[in-house]
Amino acid sequence: MRHSSWISCCSDLRNMSKAPDSILRRLKVRRQKQRTILAMRWRCAKGGKEFKELDTFYRAIRPYLCVAQLFGIMPLSNVLSRDPQDVKFRLRSVGMCFTGLFLLLGGIKTVMQANILFRTGLNAKNMMNLVFLIVGIVNWLNFTGFARSWSKLILPWSSLDILMQFAPYAPSKHSLRSKLRLIGCVVGSLAVVDHLLYYASGYYSYHMHIFHCHTNHSRLSFGSYLEKEFSETFELLPYNMFSVCYGFWLNAAFTFLWNFMDIFIVLTSISLAQRFRQFADRVLALQGRQVPDTLWYDIRRDHIRLCELASLVDESMSNIVLMSCANNVYVICNQALAIFTKLRHPINYVYFWYSLLFLLARTSLVFMSASKIHDASLLPLRTLYLVPSTHWTEEVQRFVSQLTSEFVGLSGYRLFYLTRKSLFGMMATLVTYELMLLQMDAKSHKAGLPDLCA
Amino acid sequence: MRHSSWISCCSDLRNMSKAPDSILRRLKVRRQKQRTILAMRWRCAKGGKEFKELDTFYRAIRPYLCVAQLFGIMPLSNVLSRDPQDVKFRLRSVGMCFTGLFLLLGGIKTVMQANILFRTGLNAKNMMNLVFLIVGIVNWLNFTGFARSWSKLILPWSSLDILMQFAPYAPSKHSLRSKLRLIGCVVGSLAVVDHLLYYASGYYSYHMHIFHCHTNHSRLSFGSYLEKEFSETFELLPYNMFSVCYGFWLNAAFTFLWNFMDIFIVLTSISLAQRFRQFADRVLALQGRQVPDTLWYDIRRDHIRLCELASLVDESMSNIVLMSCANNVYVICNQALAIFTKLRHPINYVYFWYSLLFLLARTSLVFMSASKIHDASLLPLRTLYLVPSTHWTEEVQRFVSQLTSEFVGLSGYRLFYLTRKSLFGMMATLVTYELMLLQMDAKSHKAGLPDLCA
Amino acid sequence: MRHSSWISCCSDLRNMSKAPDSILRRLKVRRQKQRTILAMRWRCAKGGKEFKELDTFYRAIRPYLCVAQLFGIMPLSNVLSRDPQDVKFRLRSVGMCFTGLFLLLGGIKTVMQANILFRTGLNAKNMMNLVFLIVGIVNWLNFTGFARSWSKLILPWSSLDILMQFAPYAPSKHSLRSKLRLIGCVVGSLAVVDHLLYYASGYYSYHMHIFHCHTNHSRLSFGSYLEKEFSETFELLPYNMFSVCYGFWLNAAFTFLWNFMDIFIVLTSISLAQRFRQFADRVLALQGRQVPDTLWYDIRRDHIRLCELASLVDESMSNIVLMSCANNVYVICNQALAIFTKLRHPINYVYFWYSLLFLLARTSLVFMSASKIHDASLLPLRTLYLVPSTHWTEEVQRFVSQLTSEFVGLSGYRLFYLTRKSLFGMMATLVTYELMLLQMDAKSHKAGLPDLCA
Amino acid sequence: MRHSSWISCCSDLRNMSKAPDSILRRLKVRRQKQRTILAMRWRCAKGGKEFKELDTFYRAIRPYLCVAQLFGIMPLSNVLSRDPQDVKFRLRSVGMCFTGLFLLLGGIKTVMQANILFRTGLNAKNMMNLVFLIVGIVNWLNFTGFARSWSKLILPWSSLDILMQFAPYAPSKHSLRSKLRLIGCVVGSLAVVDHLLYYASGYYSYHMHIFHCHTNHSRLSFGSYLEKEFSETFELLPYNMFSVCYGFWLNAAFTFLWNFMDIFIVLTSISLAQRFRQFADRVLALQGRQVPDTLWYDIRRDHIRLCELASLVDESMSNIVLMSCANNVYVICNQALAIFTKLRHPINYVYFWYSLLFLLARTSLVFMSASKIHDASLLPLRTLYLVPSTHWTEEVQRFVSQLTSEFVGLSGYRLFYLTRKSLFGMMATLVTYELMLLQMDAKSHKAGLPDLCA
Repeated sequence: MRHSSWISCCSDLRNMSKAPDSILRRLKVRRQKQRTILAMRWRCAKGGKEFKELDTFYRAIRPYLCVAQLFGIMPLSNVLSRDPQDVKFRLRSVGMCFTGLFLLLGGIKTVMQANILFRTGLNAKNMMNLVFLIVGIVNWLNFTGFARSWSKLILPWSSLDILMQFAPYAPSKHSLRSKLRLIGCVVGSLAVVDHLLYYASGYYSYHMHIFHCHTNHSRLSFGSYLEKEFSETFELLPYNMFSVCYGFWLNAAFTFLWNFMDIFIVLTSISLAQRFRQFADRVLALQGRQVPDTLWYDIRRDHIRLCELASLVDESMSNIVLMSCANNVYVICNQALAIFTKLRHPINYVYFWYSLLFLLARTSLVFMSASKIHDASLLPLRTLYLVPSTHWTEEVQRFVSQLTSEFVGLSGYRLFYLTRKSLFGMMATLVTYELMLLQMDAKSHKAGLPDLCA
Repeated sequence: MRHSSWISCCSDLRNMSKAPDSILRRLKVRRQKQRTILAMRWRCAKGGKEFKELDTFYRAIRPYLCVAQLFGIMPLSNVLSRDPQDVKFRLRSVGMCFTGLFLLLGGIKTVMQANILFRTGLNAKNMMNLVFLIVGIVNWLNFTGFARSWSKLILPWSSLDILMQFAPYAPSKHSLRSKLRLIGCVVGSLAVVDHLLYYASGYYSYHMHIFHCHTNHSRLSFGSYLEKEFSETFELLPYNMFSVCYGFWLNAAFTFLWNFMDIFIVLTSISLAQRFRQFADRVLALQGRQVPDTLWYDIRRDHIRLCELASLVDESMSNIVLMSCANNVYVICNQALAIFTKLRHPINYVYFWYSLLFLLARTSLVFMSASKIHDASLLPLRTLYLVPSTHWTEEVQRFVSQLTSEFVGLSGYRLFYLTRKSLFGMMATLVTYELMLLQMDAKSHKAGLPDLCA
Repeated sequence: MRHSSWISCCSDLRNMSKAPDSILRRLKVRRQKQRTILAMRWRCAKGGKEFKELDTFYRAIRPYLCVAQLFGIMPLSNVLSRDPQDVKFRLRSVGMCFTGLFLLLGGIKTVMQANILFRTGLNAKNMMNLVFLIVGIVNWLNFTGFARSWSKLILPWSSLDILMQFAPYAPSKHSLRSKLRLIGCVVGSLAVVDHLLYYASGYYSYHMHIFHCHTNHSRLSFGSYLEKEFSETFELLPYNMFSVCYGFWLNAAFTFLWNFMDIFIVLTSISLAQRFRQFADRVLALQGRQVPDTLWYDIRRDHIRLCELASLVDESMSNIVLMSCANNVYVICNQALAIFTKLRHPINYVYFWYSLLFLLARTSLVFMSASKIHDASLLPLRTLYLVPSTHWTEEVQRFVSQLTSEFVGLSGYRLFYLTRKSLFGMMATLVTYELMLLQMDAKSHKAGLPDLCA
Repeated sequence: MRHSSWISCCSDLRNMSKAPDSILRRLKVRRQKQRTILAMRWRCAKGGKEFKELDTFYRAIRPYLCVAQLFGIMPLSNVLSRDPQDVKFRLRSVGMCFTGLFLLLGGIKTVMQANILFRTGLNAKNMMNLVFLIVGIVNWLNFTGFARSWSKLILPWSSLDILMQFAPYAPSKHSLRSKLRLIGCVVGSLAVVDHLLYYASGYYSYHMHIFHCHTNHSRLSFGSYLEKEFSETFELLPYNMFSVCYGFWLNAAFTFLWNFMDIFIVLTSISLAQRFRQFADRVLALQGRQVPDTLWYDIRRDHIRLCELASLVDESMSNIVLMSCANNVYVICNQALAIFTKLRHPINYVYFWYSLLFLLARTSLVFMSASKIHDASLLPLRTLYLVPSTHWTEEVQRFVSQLTSEFVGLSGYRLFYLTRKSLFGMMATLVTYELMLLQMDAKSHKAGLPDLCA
């Protein structure tokens, strides 16, 4: 039983938020110094429940962090530990070695690709591949930066999680863990199918091309296809089993990273929204009762803590959110453009539409789940409207004004917020853009497919 | 006299809102449990008026629902009954058979059309026809989904309607029923003219083409035109009276659905706005009097009930609203593009401009009537500003803040709201798009009409 | 002395606002019935000042109405009278005859122009002329509609004007009349120059064309130019002095109407903003003093009256505002497109740039002066923030919330509001559009000027 | 010791703000008359600290003003003095001579450039150079206008600065002076590199062109390049050392002005934000203590003074902000278009990308630092939410509503505000525009580089 470690963890809270703004830091520290330590110790001791079995965000997200380690994303040491305070960012750790390795190999791949492109001439079409690689590299760096601030984030979050496991907060129907597992599995499987279709579509095109245009049918094998697919790898490495695996692995890493970025935002949003909903449930339970002002003050404090956690998450993840949205929009724009391009084989159509729809769905999922944080944060409002005038005090009024005045949710450096409205704006712009291009397309002469062997 | 049935209906309210959000559900149930049942029973008994003759929304919308049944839209059983609680969605009913039939036949038509298009090559122009069919299918499904939640919606609405038939609520000058009948008839007639013009324009073009370019004048008849018009039907069926009727009927069903979708939103909006206006009238009547806090509390409760009804309607109809707006905008964009295309015959011009203007008017009507809900919900504000300070209590202040803080109205999944501002934004985007295309058009060489017989 | 007539005018207030909304109407009537009549009679009697010499909006706008009569705009009878209650819309009046004449002649011109265009083929370029004529016709109708509601608007406005001529309201430094005269004269003169440049540019081009390409130099005269310019007139009328004047006059009427529309909005906005500023001055004068609640209530009532006047003006002028903005934006878009078109003669350049800049300035002026209404309505806020807590009562707080909650200003059917933000949005869209076209232009081959005599 | 001069300076405050709005002026004057003079004298005397050594905005910005004098920007007399009240705008001063000289020489350059362009035909590409010159001239005039209102701005700012050097305001960690010096140096150096790269890229292209295409290798020198670069100078002046220096100097002046404009906005924003943050720190220090209402009132007054300073700055700098943003966006649009243009030499690529990225970074810096003013102004809110109900008085509530109701920050004539949201909107529009152009580009035939010697 390492309850004592939790107490020291709570005292760590004092140092946790080295946010740029001195005011915000001092504010947080002072408040948390007072309450958290005492409350936590008392609760855990009394509840007698092992906190490792509690339905915390850390417990739910841990499997994803473990998998991410394999691809050098979010290098944290002791990620297998069930105790969030063991998990820290260390510059000299196995995770960092992995990350360094990926950055090195990914960097080489990127430089070589860039080299090829600049030789043949950069244009809007072939740029997409390069952007994909560069975004990947930037994301590895972003996640490494996020890993550095991970312990500053997970400790207050865990303490809030523990707080909300006990009365007066009611547990939610479905545990956070099962929710996150479900969503992660579904999106993950769809991503794997997407990745496999990529190879299938590529190989089939290659196969048909060789079959019809070359007499040398010895090059029909899957191996020859890979030789072409990973051509920039084979400029440095000889062709053998190992280097083929290496090619697959590096490709998979970039694809995984891209999907992980979105999934991670979704999972975090769902977890935050859940806490806000639990909070609203607690407020609802008070309906019809005579609530003393001190209790309202306590509730309001909890609300401020939740809001501060949300703003801490927003601050830490801003660059990841910005990168995710920018990249998704860019790829959608590029894909959407090709809707009316004639493709040669049915498998090409399948891959094209599958990946486009999957991307649209994933992007919408990111926006919709993040917008749920804000929606959930406004839920207590309806209960408060029904407080009768005899119980209506200054505290309740302040609570109402607090609820309505601030925006709670994720954003990309506060340049834009992940809301339904933003999603609609994005979609509307996309559609306008698409319509414009279609009309331009309709005007130009429509050539058929170019000769297969040209 | 089936007053007793109404009481049971009111007790059904407890189960009515299986909204996804547990909090909202519990909130609603508790409140309605307390008040509704008692109040309703007392009123109906005292009023002695047969509720079937009251000016309820159900009574006003029923004729439209009956007509919709003929096209398999909103399959409800007992739709002829005057008692809203008789009307329920049943999986095994005549309505569902109709819906299934339409889905099947519409589906076949869609698949065949898609087949033809994919063979000849999909492009921006010929896609429109396919989109029209697909949107139709989706709408049948949407309305079926709406029918499932119909009883959850109509029961609380009807009870509110009854509440607002009696004092202190004053009846409105024109009954809801007459208003809805007027609008329905006008828009409906315009839609019928639009549909007839479609055939007239098509047949005239066909006629002139055959007359000038073919020697075989036996194919000048209307029947031959239909053979071409419903060509995908005659791929499966032999040409006879029955299959021609079938072609007409299926075409009419899709067109009816498209118009019904918009009209339904308009009618619902008008009905909701009417209730909000009645509510404002009641508040106005209190002006200059000394109003006790308990009465303000009662009024505020009624306002919350109205807002909840509005948000229930918004939730249930979100997908219909989204589909309606998306489809209308898409068709307008496509039509607007063709403004400067030279047409051959005057009747073509008449049809083109009539259908474009009708569509624009219908879309504007949807937005304008939906925006009236919000406008009406703000009307009590002006009365409240004039409450003198001696009567100004906490209750009034809360009422004011309640009125100003929330948005009341229809939306497409809260991605966008049906307001005047949205309408303007949409129109502005359309105009920009149109201007851009015109300029592109002005640059390209303007050929005359292609040869008629080419 | 017709003081008694003013009293009856005030009793007319009861019938004045047949607004569509019964609530708003009843609200207004009741309030004004109580206060206005008594206060007005008492004031005018006591002040002993002839109200015809007061600096009212009616007195300031009257000269413009008189000029407008000459072109059949806003047909009001007795417009020469200095008493606003004499000026009413009458169906059988000289003004209406004029309006009818203009509508008839303008209609004929429009139909003939449309006929020519449909024969030669409508396109983006030649459409502009037709749109100009149609907008003119619609505006004549709009202004006639506005004239019908004129007496409903000017009577409450005048009574407010009178109220604000006396203490406690301080007169403003520059009289409304002088302000309006200055702006009207400046914009009017610029418009006249614009109109003259139109003929100069047209005639010079015509002259050079005939001089270089025709041997028949007898057609070099200004008369021959007019024959071409007013060609659609001379299809119906023989060529003589009278019909030339007729051509000039009709052209001038359309141009005058276009300018009048904008100037009228500007003048109205300035007058409204002035009253709001006077109101803010009164509130400012109370600063530092102990103000009893009853006085605050009086001030708040005056504010509500001002806001109601503003919303009445907004309602009456919505269609004029909408038309003005839509038309201006359309013409700017069309002109902006031609920026890089090579013109043949310097005078063409002068006319083109002068008219473009004049139009931009006029449009900006419309938006800027209308936005000043809202700015002025917020001015009392700063004074209220400085009220010390000892004098801070519920009345003051309600005043603050009233000031911040509502938008005061002009709008186009509330689809958009005339604010600085809207102006910026419009300009940004224009610039984006322009940039896009320029780039498209840069790509296409730049031909020189076409042959002069082609 | 010139303390007495400060007192007279403070009495100057009475005359300082000849803002157009009489109300605002009178408001400010009255307030400042009461407090400022007494408070300032008392403080300075007591503190015993020489105010010239205080960390005021004037002291921090002075070096930049001195440098600006060299290029005739912001002509102020006595700019070397450490006392802000010595620095005034005088029509007859050395600074004005400089400004006049630059306006004259710059004007000649602009006219000659315009002359060349109009002769060869204006188009979207060559217009950029002319716009650059015109914007420069306008900016000289703008800054001269700003210099005229400088003393009206710097005196109240300095008195606020002095106020905030002493308790209860805590000094900030890094002095304003060091912050401003750091940012100025970094951006300045980057700008110098940009300017040098411009010449390097130009000379290299020129050199290679002569080397490959001309036999006369005597023209390979840097001097010959300059002859071409400053061709419009050498139309008026003979070619010698002096006129070359003149060419460099004038070019540098325009470039300096462009950079200075942005840097000046950034520095001003940072200084303002700093004061708001200090203010928030003071409020934070009161947390947990029992604060009497009089103290809250004092704090609220200080906040109003800060807001008034911010709105004074906004008013004075509106035209500079508008010009800066409009110009930056225009240049970015033009540059962004050329991304896929093939360039001949690596140095061309280096210059192109360096200058594009530098411009984007500078523009973002302007928006981000200006948006910090608003962010900082909202910081006290969090402290106020935590005030317990026992200490919650009307004063605190008014403070909260004051903080939330007004926008504090810089704007371009309030047409747009410098916020993160605006930056995002601008960037999104840019990206959409860029994407559209790229697609249009992708469609047109891609020619290689044109012949070097063509």
